[in-house]
Amino acid sequence: MNYYEESLKLHEKFAGKIEVKSKVAITTREDLSLAYTPGVAEPCKRIHENEEDVYKYTAKGNLVAVVTDGTAVLGLGDIGPKAGLPVMEGKAILFKEFADVDAFPICLDTKNVDEIVQAVKLIAPGFGGINLEDISAPRCFEVEEKLKKELDIPVFHDDQHGTAIVVLAGIINALKVVGKKINEIKVVVNGAGAAGTAITKLLLSSDVKEMIVCDKVGILYRGMEGVDDAKKDLAKITNPNVIKGDLSDALKDADVFIGVSAPGIVTKEMVSTMNKDAILFAMANPTPEIMPDEAKAAGAKVIGTGRSDFANQVNNVLAFPGIFKGALKVRAKEINEEMKIAAAYAIASMIKDEDLNENNVIPNALDKSVADNVAEAIEKAARKSGVARL
Amino acid sequence: MNYYEESLKLHEKFAGKIEVKSKVAITTREDLSLAYTPGVAEPCKRIHENEEDVYKYTAKGNLVAVVTDGTAVLGLGDIGPKAGLPVMEGKAILFKEFADVDAFPICLDTKNVDEIVQAVKLIAPGFGGINLEDISAPRCFEVEEKLKKELDIPVFHDDQHGTAIVVLAGIINALKVVGKKINEIKVVVNGAGAAGTAITKLLLSSDVKEMIVCDKVGILYRGMEGVDDAKKDLAKITNPNVIKGDLSDALKDADVFIGVSAPGIVTKEMVSTMNKDAILFAMANPTPEIMPDEAKAAGAKVIGTGRSDFANQVNNVLAFPGIFKGALKVRAKEINEEMKIAAAYAIASMIKDEDLNENNVIPNALDKSVADNVAEAIEKAARKSGVARL
Repeated sequence: MNYYEESLKLHEKFAGKIEVKSKVAITTREDLSLAYTPGVAEPCKRIHENEEDVYKYTAKGNLVAVVTDGTAVLGLGDIGPKAGLPVMEGKAILFKEFADVDAFPICLDTKNVDEIVQAVKLIAPGFGGINLEDISAPRCFEVEEKLKKELDIPVFHDDQHGTAIVVLAGIINALKVVGKKINEIKVVVNGAGAAGTAITKLLLSSDVKEMIVCDKVGILYRGMEGVDDAKKDLAKITNPNVIKGDLSDALKDADVFIGVSAPGIVTKEMVSTMNKDAILFAMANPTPEIMPDEAKAAGAKVIGTGRSDFANQVNNVLAFPGIFKGALKVRAKEINEEMKIAAAYAIASMIKDEDLNENNVIPNALDKSVADNVAEAIEKAARKSGVARL
Repeated sequence: MNYYEESLKLHEKFAGKIEVKSKVAITTREDLSLAYTPGVAEPCKRIHENEEDVYKYTAKGNLVAVVTDGTAVLGLGDIGPKAGLPVMEGKAILFKEFADVDAFPICLDTKNVDEIVQAVKLIAPGFGGINLEDISAPRCFEVEEKLKKELDIPVFHDDQHGTAIVVLAGIINALKVVGKKINEIKVVVNGAGAAGTAITKLLLSSDVKEMIVCDKVGILYRGMEGVDDAKKDLAKITNPNVIKGDLSDALKDADVFIGVSAPGIVTKEMVSTMNKDAILFAMANPTPEIMPDEAKAAGAKVIGTGRSDFANQVNNVLAFPGIFKGALKVRAKEINEEMKIAAAYAIASMIKDEDLNENNVIPNALDKSVADNVAEAIEKAARKSGVARL
C-alpha cells in the first residue's frame, strides 16, 4: 500500500479528521431552552460565583489544546501552521480514540516565543491542558518553561516528554531482558534536540548515573564552546568524566544507545565496541540510525525503532493519551518528573515478565488498554507528589 | 419546568456540551499509518506547497471559532471568559445541529482590544471563519473592524449582525402584513449598543430613509456632546431632521420600534402616538420593552420579542448557522452588507405569503430548513458581490 497516496485520499474524502459534536440533541424548544437561552444563564452564573465550577459545567476539564507553530513537523521541518494542521488533527483524534480525551488543534501563526506564550495564555480558560507539539528546539524549551510558570493547567511538550517516557519504558523492560540494573548502565543519547534533551533528563531522574549526549558537534562536555545555552545546560548534567570526541568514542563500553538523530550514522563497528547485550533505540525516521538486523549482527541484544514494521516500536501514542487522561482526572496542576516516571513504569508493566523478550519490550502501539493503565499511574503519582487538585 | 435548575443538571450530567470526535476510526496499524504517521506527511507537504490545499485536507474549511472575552454574556454582563464558556459551547452546538458547521469556543483571558485581535490572528490558520460573541460595545466594533482588515476569512460579530438580520427579516414580512414600503417608513431604534448599531446600519443599507436612534441619553443627533465616538458616528448617519428629545418624542409618527434596551420602558401612551399599524420588536430580555398584549391594546399591529413564548421570536439561530455555512461553502473573504440583506430576505421568504399574518412574520427558531435557505442566499450574494473564492 502506498501510505502517502492513500492518506491523501482519506484526508480529502472527509475534509480533515475532526468534527465538533454536540453531546445533547437540539430538537425541541425545551432542548434549546436548556442547552442555550434562557437556561444556560445558570451555569454561567455559577461559574462566575465560583470559578472552579467551570470544570463541572463545561467541557474544559476533558479538553486539551494541541498547540503548534508548525516549525518542526514530523521530519518535514518548518512548514508553517497550516501545513502542520493534518498532524495536529491526527494527534487530536488519537487523544479521543485512545483515551476519550477531547483535543483540539491550535496552529499559531507566529514563531516568536513570547507571542506563542501569550496566545496560549489567552486561550487557556477553555482548556484543561496544553499539549505542545512540533515546536522546534531550543524555542520549545522556553515556550514550555514559560507556560508552566504562567498556567495552572498541565503543559506538556509531547515531542520531548512523550518520547522520553516511552523510551524509558523500553529501557526498563530491556534491562530486565539483559539482566542489568538501571543505576549501573552507561547510556549514550545521540541528538540534543527536543526529544534527546528530555530523554536525557528523564533517564537521569530515573537513576541512570552515566549519561553521555552527542550532537553534530560531537560529545557534549562541560565548558564546551560554540553551542547554544540549552546544550550547555545539558553538558552540565551529563558526561561526569568530561569525555571528548565523537559518537564512536562515546559508544565504547556503553550499555544503551538512544538515537534521535539521522539515518545510518551508527555503524556495526561502533556497536561492536559497546558492552555485551547492548540495547539500542534507533529512532531516526523513516530510516533508523542503524537497521535492526545489522545491529544484531554486530552483537546488540535489544533493538527498538520508531517504525511499526520492526519489533519494539517507540510510539508516543502509548504515553500522551493516558498521561492527559490521568492528569485531567485529578485536575493536576502540572505533569512532573514523578508522573512521567510512573507513566513509563506503567507502560513497561503492560508486558508480563513471562512475555518479555528482546523482541517484546514495548507494548503494541494499538493496545488501547495501555492508556487506562498509564492514567491510573499518573493519578497516583500526581496525588503522591502533591499536584493533584482532586 | 424550572429551566435554570434543569439546565444546571444537563450541563453537569455531560460535563459541558461539546466533544471533539474523529471522522475516521483508528483500530488497525493501517488506520494509524494513514491518519497519522507516516501517511499524514503527504497532506502536510501538499499544503506546504500550496496553502489553499489546507481547505482540501483539513477541517479548516468547515470550522468556526466562537470567540469571546466574556464581557457581555447574555444579560449577565462582564462575567469573564470561563463563565462565558457555557454560552459559547451552546453556540457551537447550534452551529453543528442547525447547519453541520463545526464550531469551537475560544474564551479569551483579556479585555484589551489589541490583545483580542492579536490572539484571534494567531489562531486563525486553523479556522475557516470567526464568530465574535458577547464582546461589549464599543470595543466589539473595534475588534471586528481590525480583524476584518487583518484576516482573509469571514469575521462576524453575531450580537450585532445576527440580530440585525433577523430583525430585518421580521420587518420585511411585517411590512407586507401592514402594507407599507420599506423606503417610506420611520424607524426608531432604542439602544445604541452592539445590536442597535448593527440594526440601524443594516436598515439604512436596506433602503430605510428615516431612522432615529435613542439611548439612555435620549435621541442621538449630529453634534451631540458627551457620548462615545461610536454613538457620534451613529448620529451622523441617522436622524436627518436633527430631532432632539427622548424616546417618547422619537416615537411620534414612527412606523417601527426596535428595542434592544431595557424592560418596560415603552408605555401604551407612546405606542398610541405611533403611526397606524405600528410594528414593534421589543427584544429586552427576559422582559420586553412593552408586553405584546399592552402594545396591541395601544393600537400596534405586529409585535415581536426575544422570547419563545410569544409570537415572532427574534432568534439569531435563524441566521448565523446558515450564514457561516454559505460563506464557508464559497470560501467568502468576508460577510458583507449584500450578504446580510440576502440572508434577511431568505429568512423572511420561509413564510409563504398565504401564511403571513401579524403573529407569523418570523419563522420558528427550530425550523432547521431555514439554514440551508440562508446558506444558498449567502452563496449567491457572495458570488455577486465578488467576495467568493469558489
